[in-house]
Amino acid sequence: MEEAKIKDFATEFDPQPFHLDEIAARASIFKGLAASGWHTAAIAMRLLVTGGLPLADGIIGLGGEITWPRPTRPGDSLHVDSEILDITLSRSKPNQAVVLVRSTMLNQNDEPVYVFNAKVLVFKRPVIKETEHATT
Amino acid sequence: MEEAKIKDFATEFDPQPFHLDEIAARASIFKGLAASGWHTAAIAMRLLVTGGLPLADGIIGLGGEITWPRPTRPGDSLHVDSEILDITLSRSKPNQAVVLVRSTMLNQNDEPVYVFNAKVLVFKRPVIKETEHATT
Repeated sequence: MEEAKIKDFATEFDPQPFHLDEIAARASIFKGLAASGWHTAAIAMRLLVTGGLPLADGIIGLGGEITWPRPTRPGDSLHVDSEILDITLSRSKPNQAVVLVRSTMLNQNDEPVYVFNAKVLVFKRPVIKETEHATT
Repeated sequence: MEEAKIKDFATEFDPQPFHLDEIAARASIFKGLAASGWHTAAIAMRLLVTGGLPLADGIIGLGGEITWPRPTRPGDSLHVDSEILDITLSRSKPNQAVVLVRSTMLNQNDEPVYVFNAKVLVFKRPVIKETEHATT
């Protein structure tokens, strides 16, 4: 997590003093420069999309529950762990399901900075096509 | 919502075909280019910070529940409405409270694209200082 990127993101999307200025941040409840929670969330998404959550049709989030247990800081090194908690088949759309995934992003001290319990839309594999392929 | 910004954000944080490429997006469940949900969330935050949610000490989110009822599209014009649902005073920290705020971002057709039920940390005004000020 680079300090310049924290400030760039905050300038565009979350221009509050504790995301933009070290001195103001030190006087705030964060006690130092902290990334916007939305920057943290966006980085978690990048980690999920680029390998952290291998879903064949992509990660299509319907919504979910976020917590930011502690700030993300300049210099933090972040990684994300995901766990499938539940799979609910759609009643109306037989090729769809909603998967409940808990993704936790941790810093270099293995402290969680972000937890997202997400509802993600997934699709069943097209079984008929696979069968066709197998017989040709 | 500019198409170039949708692609820029997605390139950095959410590089999935339906956020990057019109043709791939048309073939996806989105049926057309859609902004990353995190881009949508970040824009909602900008609208809140720059006037949509006037909190004296800033908007310090502890977490909350997100839904994206429909995609945000290129050309969309977005605005946000907020409603205070609840205020819970802290038991351990007498100058703090957690405010439950529901923010809904709507497009130009007044269709919700984003709903965030957020827990926001707020601080009571320093009453003693105000009294001092009044007597000097």
